[in-house]
Amino acid sequence: MEILITNDDGWGAQGIMLLTKLMTQLGHVTVVAPDGPRSSYSNCISMGKPMTLEKVDLTDCDAFSIAEKRQIDVYVTNGTPSDCVKLALNVLFNDQPERIDLLVSGINHGSNASINVVYSGTMGACFTGCEHNIKGIGFSIYDNYQPTDLSYFEPYIVELCRHLLDTPWRRGLAYNINAPKGKLKGIKWTRQCAGHWEKEIREQINEQGKKEYWITGVFVNEEPNAEDTDEWAVANGYISVQPCNVDMTDYASL
Amino acid sequence: MEILITNDDGWGAQGIMLLTKLMTQLGHVTVVAPDGPRSSYSNCISMGKPMTLEKVDLTDCDAFSIAEKRQIDVYVTNGTPSDCVKLALNVLFNDQPERIDLLVSGINHGSNASINVVYSGTMGACFTGCEHNIKGIGFSIYDNYQPTDLSYFEPYIVELCRHLLDTPWRRGLAYNINAPKGKLKGIKWTRQCAGHWEKEIREQINEQGKKEYWITGVFVNEEPNAEDTDEWAVANGYISVQPCNVDMTDYASL
Repeated sequence: MEILITNDDGWGAQGIMLLTKLMTQLGHVTVVAPDGPRSSYSNCISMGKPMTLEKVDLTDCDAFSIAEKRQIDVYVTNGTPSDCVKLALNVLFNDQPERIDLLVSGINHGSNASINVVYSGTMGACFTGCEHNIKGIGFSIYDNYQPTDLSYFEPYIVELCRHLLDTPWRRGLAYNINAPKGKLKGIKWTRQCAGHWEKEIREQINEQGKKEYWITGVFVNEEPNAEDTDEWAVANGYISVQPCNVDMTDYASL
Repeated sequence: MEILITNDDGWGAQGIMLLTKLMTQLGHVTVVAPDGPRSSYSNCISMGKPMTLEKVDLTDCDAFSIAEKRQIDVYVTNGTPSDCVKLALNVLFNDQPERIDLLVSGINHGSNASINVVYSGTMGACFTGCEHNIKGIGFSIYDNYQPTDLSYFEPYIVELCRHLLDTPWRRGLAYNINAPKGKLKGIKWTRQCAGHWEKEIREQINEQGKKEYWITGVFVNEEPNAEDTDEWAVANGYISVQPCNVDMTDYASL
């Protein structure tokens, strides 16, 4: 199998290092990742800007064994997570999406459940995969801080990939997988919880005496008692597996 | 009525100037727009970066009449289209989304049909509106160049807003409206066409002798004969009205 990996925290983040190591159990791994943090980049692409693509020398990298390194090629770019997928597909795979058996994105440091899926660079990369009919799975852990404890989540990741690859996969589908930190009770299939952020802007006077505005906020779960949502699953110790689709049509309204 | 306007082409673009003028027919207009082009910014938000918000003095602006100017407040920011909505809501409307009766975004210079909806900053702003239960409508014209001929599209815009505001509006819904350039046959309700971009990366050697990569591409319609799609409508002279939903759950897979 050929596995493409990306993320939005950048190459070197704890989550992508573990994901890369794990994916060598499934086949050859190509990583194309941002050269630094691109959180909340959604499906942003670098229209009108020159992008770089540089191969990373893993010789002195002690995150992988010699055997693992033989299966891993890593590239970094100044682009976004979506750019990573487009660069990989066009430059490294000769515009042939059928050569990529699986796209995995993450492990993101922070929640991508509920409305966050729309802002997520991790999931944005998967949706760009959907555009090209590449099967995509995004992994996230509910902890914004690195290092975090990924030891409970880790045993599920390869098995989830194997299992989901064996299920029917219709056009536009990608999976948004979120895990709580700590011990896990199992896996729940979920839908996107209705939720929003409040108090999202912090005002501050900068050194030049001018007002500036920073993104912050408090997440509000609009349906805390609905047991079929991603937020409920994670709040109750389960891994949430949310099937998403890049077809955003509201068929109910049609 | 209180109408919030934004776009991804930046304040001063032909499309947003016309949209602002038209919306004065419906009520008071607050514009919060990027200070320059933010095409393909999707739902990107400026996490970890200071944002500006500056009021624009319209005194010498000859795009609006004196009567229109009394109904218009304009702000620009260094942020993204999604940031514009978050800044407007939090800073100008005191975190009270119910004070905004309608969010309109555009008129975008370029198509936001098919897969483009996922990359669109115009629609990204509407999806941020959805997060906050603000009714959002994005307008786009199939022409990347300015100035373009908006005279055929113009008479539909206020009427479409009035009509859609009168229809049931469930949580997460926003409308993605695309028009062809030139004469129009009418309006079609549509779904998102399956499509993708090919040959998306152009390689070039820069002045330092290094390879750089630019986003480009050719759009491929994967279902050119499906008469219920946005692409079909626009290709056949109709305005496409696609209801979208910010709930990306693939319920068919669940």
